[in-house]
Amino acid sequence: MAAIALYSDAFWISPWVFSCFVGLREKALPFEVAEVALHKKEQLQGGYAGSTLTGRVPALRHGDFWLAESSAILEYLEEAFPPPGHPRLLPEGLTDRARARQLLSWMRSDETLPIRHERSSETLFYPGSPVRPLSANAQGAAAKLYEVAGRFLPRDDASVFGSWSIVDAELAFLLHRLIAGGDAVPEPLRRYAGAQWLRPSVAQYVAHARVPFVRYF
Amino acid sequence: MAAIALYSDAFWISPWVFSCFVGLREKALPFEVAEVALHKKEQLQGGYAGSTLTGRVPALRHGDFWLAESSAILEYLEEAFPPPGHPRLLPEGLTDRARARQLLSWMRSDETLPIRHERSSETLFYPGSPVRPLSANAQGAAAKLYEVAGRFLPRDDASVFGSWSIVDAELAFLLHRLIAGGDAVPEPLRRYAGAQWLRPSVAQYVAHARVPFVRYF
Repeated sequence: MAAIALYSDAFWISPWVFSCFVGLREKALPFEVAEVALHKKEQLQGGYAGSTLTGRVPALRHGDFWLAESSAILEYLEEAFPPPGHPRLLPEGLTDRARARQLLSWMRSDETLPIRHERSSETLFYPGSPVRPLSANAQGAAAKLYEVAGRFLPRDDASVFGSWSIVDAELAFLLHRLIAGGDAVPEPLRRYAGAQWLRPSVAQYVAHARVPFVRYF
Repeated sequence: MAAIALYSDAFWISPWVFSCFVGLREKALPFEVAEVALHKKEQLQGGYAGSTLTGRVPALRHGDFWLAESSAILEYLEEAFPPPGHPRLLPEGLTDRARARQLLSWMRSDETLPIRHERSSETLFYPGSPVRPLSANAQGAAAKLYEVAGRFLPRDDASVFGSWSIVDAELAFLLHRLIAGGDAVPEPLRRYAGAQWLRPSVAQYVAHARVPFVRYF
């Protein structure tokens, strides 16, 4: 099989690298991780921008084929490595799969941006990162997240779609930003996010050794 | 067949409604357009937020199934209405399809946000809309757009993937923001965007009658 590499930020804090890492692990694919020093703008140098076309992280290299954008990478893995050899990342049913893509898109949208901005992802992996109280804008975004997550997870469920999907990993990541920030995450969502963090593919990313953090954004 | 409705902003200026509208027309599906008065926050009222789960426009209703987020709607149309009865919206080949999703995702990302913010989409459809010179930040975003589009469209081609895909409609929309703003769009990209605007599915959206614009964002 053609070799697979995942191009990651050097601090292992990108939510989009996280999602691709978990996707590759869940698909039981062998791959190496190549670190791109975003703090040195390596993504804009050398062949990386040319190979990826957009010069963004994450990127996947599968043999000679390069691909950037996490949502495109997840869909590519789903199509290139289908069941039964490789478990699904998205739900099987047509409408559940559509709903999953809706939530994945929404979590990348402007409506969650205040949370992602004020609860930057290094706070999940570098204890002692400074955290300030949420602005009114981010409080509104968090309230909407709790409301939307409550609609997707109406009961105290272990997964959004009845069995694990990549949506669970991404939703847990977003919730953990607020949990790490000491914010008032509703207890059922807190339990859900905590349980997701124990999943082996996720735990392996979370527990990865990290070099000291250098702010670059 | 179960009835289809597309929920649109009332001024017909949303790039994401545009893409879904074009997708439905290209699939040769009968559908009605239902207008949601975002300027009156109708998307947050009544059953709309509950039905769509996220209270966003566009949304698709197919029988009893509701779905929001344009990228999820396009994928749903692709899966629910496949060839030969319904032409593809995404390229057929695995890697081309992946590349198409990369560009669709990138065009929704923070890297194009300064263009979308400073070249707001009403400027495409409401002649005389005020336009200011681009900030340095948006100039940088436009320069990257020209560079990335040039990588995807290395020659003076009519489409990114050799035959039409939804990527062409969305890329043309993004370029038309700058064309409408009088910005220095490279001539090959200007020709490409102009040609895309003549495609019947696209032209029908562009030429749709519009009520007077009321700013709400």
